[in-house]
Amino acid sequence: MPSTQPARGMRDFLPADLRRRAFVIDVIARVYQRYGFEPLETPAVENIETLLGKYGEEGNQLIFKILKRGEHAASGQADLALRYDLTVPLARVVAEHRATLPKFFKRYQIQPVWRADRPARGRFREFYQCDVDAIGSTSLMVEAELCAAASEALTTLGFADFSIRLNHRAVLDGMLSAAGVVAGQHGDALVALDKLDKIGRDGVLKEFEARGLAPDSGERLLDLLARIAEAQASSLADPNGAALHLLAEFVGTHEAGLRGLAELRDLLALAPATAAAAHLRIDPSLARGLSYYTGAIVEIAVPDLAGSLGGGGRYDGLVGMFLEKGAQIPACGFSLGLERIIVVMTERGMFPASLAGSSADVMVTVWNADARAASLALAHDLRAAGLRVDVYPEADKLGKQMKYAASRDIPVAAILGDDEVATGMVAVKDLRSGAQVTVPRADVAAHVRGVVALPA
Amino acid sequence: MPSTQPARGMRDFLPADLRRRAFVIDVIARVYQRYGFEPLETPAVENIETLLGKYGEEGNQLIFKILKRGEHAASGQADLALRYDLTVPLARVVAEHRATLPKFFKRYQIQPVWRADRPARGRFREFYQCDVDAIGSTSLMVEAELCAAASEALTTLGFADFSIRLNHRAVLDGMLSAAGVVAGQHGDALVALDKLDKIGRDGVLKEFEARGLAPDSGERLLDLLARIAEAQASSLADPNGAALHLLAEFVGTHEAGLRGLAELRDLLALAPATAAAAHLRIDPSLARGLSYYTGAIVEIAVPDLAGSLGGGGRYDGLVGMFLEKGAQIPACGFSLGLERIIVVMTERGMFPASLAGSSADVMVTVWNADARAASLALAHDLRAAGLRVDVYPEADKLGKQMKYAASRDIPVAAILGDDEVATGMVAVKDLRSGAQVTVPRADVAAHVRGVVALPA
Repeated sequence: MPSTQPARGMRDFLPADLRRRAFVIDVIARVYQRYGFEPLETPAVENIETLLGKYGEEGNQLIFKILKRGEHAASGQADLALRYDLTVPLARVVAEHRATLPKFFKRYQIQPVWRADRPARGRFREFYQCDVDAIGSTSLMVEAELCAAASEALTTLGFADFSIRLNHRAVLDGMLSAAGVVAGQHGDALVALDKLDKIGRDGVLKEFEARGLAPDSGERLLDLLARIAEAQASSLADPNGAALHLLAEFVGTHEAGLRGLAELRDLLALAPATAAAAHLRIDPSLARGLSYYTGAIVEIAVPDLAGSLGGGGRYDGLVGMFLEKGAQIPACGFSLGLERIIVVMTERGMFPASLAGSSADVMVTVWNADARAASLALAHDLRAAGLRVDVYPEADKLGKQMKYAASRDIPVAAILGDDEVATGMVAVKDLRSGAQVTVPRADVAAHVRGVVALPA
Repeated sequence: MPSTQPARGMRDFLPADLRRRAFVIDVIARVYQRYGFEPLETPAVENIETLLGKYGEEGNQLIFKILKRGEHAASGQADLALRYDLTVPLARVVAEHRATLPKFFKRYQIQPVWRADRPARGRFREFYQCDVDAIGSTSLMVEAELCAAASEALTTLGFADFSIRLNHRAVLDGMLSAAGVVAGQHGDALVALDKLDKIGRDGVLKEFEARGLAPDSGERLLDLLARIAEAQASSLADPNGAALHLLAEFVGTHEAGLRGLAELRDLLALAPATAAAAHLRIDPSLARGLSYYTGAIVEIAVPDLAGSLGGGGRYDGLVGMFLEKGAQIPACGFSLGLERIIVVMTERGMFPASLAGSSADVMVTVWNADARAASLALAHDLRAAGLRVDVYPEADKLGKQMKYAASRDIPVAAILGDDEVATGMVAVKDLRSGAQVTVPRADVAAHVRGVVALPA
């Protein structure tokens, strides 16, 4: 007998879960549409070479691989794999359709991704990403609009206290160079720095040593981050200005670093006009794990969640990996994590009470076998009037039928007995108050609407 | 350089495709909700033993298998697999949650499934099923409600000419027994009979021979089917009655066959009260491929499509395969195929013209680098007024920006030049008529609504 549980790290979503998920997805999709983004969906399964080499070494390890079929089935070879994120498939689609897509292609995509991570509290092997990306422009207006769209999605869901941590890969390059890390070791240094939240200053220094990086480079970087955090705390009127000032001092004349700082300044100047307004906060410790980012990077934090509600950044090189050598298409995007949003909204009680409602407005009872068609006909008419109608499927005793309706929180029962069928009447019972009235068949829908307080 | 195409048999859905898909899914989901069904979703990935042995030999072969991870990765062993249909996962969920689910659990589920079939025109390796199932009752009212819900979904989409082919596994048993096929060979005979549409009378007889079935049994069955088809054609007032009459004659005293015929009669008596009314048509040649059906079986046909728009039936034994020995939970369900519905609707031009609209109501232009924040602020205000707003991301020449808006079918441009910013005015251009007016900033949203003909 097979297990009845879902596979490890995967989840079944029962109706109450799905109503919450659908509510969040609907809010996010509508906001993205108001920002001019269009829907896109890609297959769950990709050719394996589409995914390999895009996410860094750790990402490669977490890709679910699908057995090749046919004559080689016994070889254990994999030629397909499950989608790991929504960004690489987007890059593939943009490369495939670049001749027909608009010059500036703005898409949103809300679909599951799969990662063979060790399951843990809040970490699943199948989870939804809500991505929004703009392809085709290097303008900072793209970053501004994306931060605004993500902010407005969160604000519409009821979040007020989130901050968008903001950094830039070129600024990180400038910081690392100024601290004495050679270009070939920037990746290693970023991986170490990325863990500061989790392993602290001493842990990062140990990581530096383990990866063969000069410890004094690590100390200079950590001192800088501490100094900036202190300056931000004591410059509450302009913490971003304080951070940018110290960063400029530190990177000196590093060309990419200066360009990155100029872009951050530009983005901060555009933000007040948008829904992202007060949420942007320069955070030079933000590194982002994925290897494909090339410019501004962001991550959304709320005080009561370790980890982020979402993140993103600019990745001007990724689409080019699917194009003839040297071709480039700029791109920038943002991903919100559906599961984490739902965790926080659930803990804070942010979902509207209306989501907890019943699955039906009224249940039609069944008097006996001969009356089944009459009950089905009444249900048909009530549905035609727009009501959500359940029909009790068996000719059980009426008390048992009523008990079932109450257990399902169905607010009204429409009772069709022999007398009612003969006289063209229906008994309508309000299951919350117990009040029962007998009304002409044609008036049942209106009467149910009255009891349930639905608009006519 | 990896290929930019999706994996074989899989598809990318661009915005125009997705609008059509979302339209169909939304109609179907709303109808199912009116019938009292609740949403359910299950993971794309199942433990492999959950799926194996549920679909018959051919089905087993078409399951996509996922490589086991960790120490055994090199062995080529598979421990997970992609969902093959939505029915077996539902049976697993019902078995897992039977203590807390309502006694009658009615769920709909609209998700993709994966089959490693040979791709062909209209046959994909990833496709959506729209399933609706009722668990917990053996009453024929369940079949009647399911046929009604599927019929109403199709009618609401604009289909009028579909028929629901109806048969019963017990009637098929009775037919086969009466024709001299021994019980152990019923499965083989059904597989052969199922191909009548494709390979004709002679082909079915050859299949009978190849499978070691007595040829005269095949001839008696085919003669019966021909006689019934003839009787239906000449009894247009009551083709179902004519078919049932001949079937009753043929199965004689076969107990299961008689019970099956009684159930078909009962279902036909309930149907006129429902949305399925005139659509049900007894078809004794209908067999259905999947092995888990135990009672009534149905398939929906339209004249201009080879194959079906959907199908289903009763499967009282499937949930029990996940329960302690001997435990049984009755179940019955219907699955509509999203892709085939879309194929027919597209060929017949059944989609509303409104789906072809633009992704934005208005595009805000950008005068120069200094004016970017002003354009973002205007976009912000127009979105707050409920409009879908695109912002041109770069300070290109105005003509180029206008050309872009026109190429995207965006009906209105909001132009903010230096003069406009200085005077608090905005130039609003109707890109279809070319008419341009300058209005106060606060009136832009209302003006755009007027041009686009949106409700205030």
